[in-house]
Amino acid sequence: MKHYSYPALLTFTKETLQKIGCPEKDAETAADVLLSADLRGVDSHGVARLSGYVRLWEVNRLNTNPRPKVVHETPSTAVVDGDGGLGLVVGPFAMQVAMDKAKNAGTGWVAVRNSNHYGIAGYHSMKALAKDMIGISLTNASPLVSPTFSKERLLGTNPISVAIPAQEQPPFVLDMATTTAANGKLEILMRKGEEAPSGWLQDKEGKPSTNPFGVKEGGALLPLGGDRVHGSHKGYGLSAVVDIFSAVLSGANYGPWVPPFVAFLEPHPHPVGEGLGHFFGAMRVDAFRPAVEFKENMDTWIKRFREAKPTDGQERVLIPGDPERELEAERKEKGIPLLPAVVEDLEKLAKKLGVEWLSGN
Amino acid sequence: MKHYSYPALLTFTKETLQKIGCPEKDAETAADVLLSADLRGVDSHGVARLSGYVRLWEVNRLNTNPRPKVVHETPSTAVVDGDGGLGLVVGPFAMQVAMDKAKNAGTGWVAVRNSNHYGIAGYHSMKALAKDMIGISLTNASPLVSPTFSKERLLGTNPISVAIPAQEQPPFVLDMATTTAANGKLEILMRKGEEAPSGWLQDKEGKPSTNPFGVKEGGALLPLGGDRVHGSHKGYGLSAVVDIFSAVLSGANYGPWVPPFVAFLEPHPHPVGEGLGHFFGAMRVDAFRPAVEFKENMDTWIKRFREAKPTDGQERVLIPGDPERELEAERKEKGIPLLPAVVEDLEKLAKKLGVEWLSGN
Repeated sequence: MKHYSYPALLTFTKETLQKIGCPEKDAETAADVLLSADLRGVDSHGVARLSGYVRLWEVNRLNTNPRPKVVHETPSTAVVDGDGGLGLVVGPFAMQVAMDKAKNAGTGWVAVRNSNHYGIAGYHSMKALAKDMIGISLTNASPLVSPTFSKERLLGTNPISVAIPAQEQPPFVLDMATTTAANGKLEILMRKGEEAPSGWLQDKEGKPSTNPFGVKEGGALLPLGGDRVHGSHKGYGLSAVVDIFSAVLSGANYGPWVPPFVAFLEPHPHPVGEGLGHFFGAMRVDAFRPAVEFKENMDTWIKRFREAKPTDGQERVLIPGDPERELEAERKEKGIPLLPAVVEDLEKLAKKLGVEWLSGN
Repeated sequence: MKHYSYPALLTFTKETLQKIGCPEKDAETAADVLLSADLRGVDSHGVARLSGYVRLWEVNRLNTNPRPKVVHETPSTAVVDGDGGLGLVVGPFAMQVAMDKAKNAGTGWVAVRNSNHYGIAGYHSMKALAKDMIGISLTNASPLVSPTFSKERLLGTNPISVAIPAQEQPPFVLDMATTTAANGKLEILMRKGEEAPSGWLQDKEGKPSTNPFGVKEGGALLPLGGDRVHGSHKGYGLSAVVDIFSAVLSGANYGPWVPPFVAFLEPHPHPVGEGLGHFFGAMRVDAFRPAVEFKENMDTWIKRFREAKPTDGQERVLIPGDPERELEAERKEKGIPLLPAVVEDLEKLAKKLGVEWLSGN
């Protein structure tokens, strides 16, 4: 696989977004969010999605020059209308509102409607860290997941991210889909021609399946847990909470009404809200106890868990955020590997929009 | 199994708690919390635990006449010191503080230290429903769970509960341990002499096990997901967030330092905080959008999911809270079934404290 330098991909993404009408500052923000996925190893949510966003714009489902605004608020809450913009732009706007609220009220909680896909959840939650705040980021997404006992797909992979600052230790950053496995992992198996583990998906008849093409063929990803005996009702419940906080609190579309990311699928003809929804939270740690005291205890927490005796054959116990942080450092230095199919797609996009494509190595 | 009337068990529990020094009002509250577990089918957390609480009092690890108080606050947050009291009493106090904050600031978030086990998480979150608020309730607990790749037990079953009001439909109530299966389910298997499903536990060497006695013999429950391939790092991450919100934000003991519920195990000789911790949240739904609008959309959400096509062999798709609510209605009418071993234990307790035990049928 060829590697591409992070700053070069950043510039390419920014220029591409400007070509479809994003103002420079928005294009810069959006590129930063999108590329953070590639840096952190969530390749399915990074630059590989760029042409998908462009296609949404082509079918008039994306406002590339939105004016997101607060449409309702209390001292600790707000609802943001994203004006049909890129979640990559609306998300950072709304997270900033949450942090501003937290400054005054101790915490800030912002539900967003009329938005679009916002990249990786962890980008937004991590914005809180530099302010000594805990960041929380949730979003709903295209319906690809079946609740426990359901043949129908009613939920997205609806991620949860929580970022918590420490003192000497790197921060604790949880960023997880509420499914057993993310869609990106199925794509890897499809390419390799390998079977999926049990508990990842069901076929279109609602039967447990290990065929990685199952979801493409009308089946569904399964909630974390996989089946009832292994707690899938819990993964379903968490995914439902993400959906309700993101969309029922904000007035966005929820459940099966969430507009699909792919432009070739039509949005639901009778929407129950506007666009898709996100939910952001920011809690000042010193709204609870002195920040240094909190962060020193986080250091103790992190060190104790990191030093736990590993099971046989394992090197170490990981802290949430460890693998992504390590990969980020590596990819900033060595570049971002892109699959040949992704490169081909981006080359075509560059040609179509008149942006210069890069040379990898 | 004999059945015991709910009001009679309530009175018995209240009288027992008064005998060990609880003021009448506290005893009433605590009995209400404890019995809600029996009503909702979480039998391991109900009256079966009463003698456990008494034993904690006997070894001076429980203050039966506490004065919980707010020790730090901002418009939307507070830290409560539970004064070493029953979580069954401290929990309702702190949840009320969260709801009072939400009344003024839109949301309220309360971290609690120096408390003890608080019954089922769902009791506390559901308190918000009558006020048209979303309720959130988290707690840490005795270390019985191993993080992914860890031989050591560092976390509790650390539950998450989220209660969300609807209009015509019954509320959405998620109440889940962050493990694949709760300890109570292993107890059932031990009694029946049956094997546990894969992914529920590991033995004391850290090897996956299906022996339900494994946890008792020094093994551990596993985080939701069971193993890495099935997403146990997500269950571990969620459990960690519950631990950190409950205890690092409040100044309670966290991770392996959480004092064990059983009185025959000593608390850690070098605690990192006071008692165990909880975390409560309350969000006014009209801090986001008009309450009726929100609740009508919740009705739509609930109906759509309830009416989803079930997979073969399943009758219906459940909404979180459905099974517990149905059981509660049944047990309020027909009484609460208690295992012979629990009855024997309670009879002994009654005799020791001079409380009248009940006749079942």
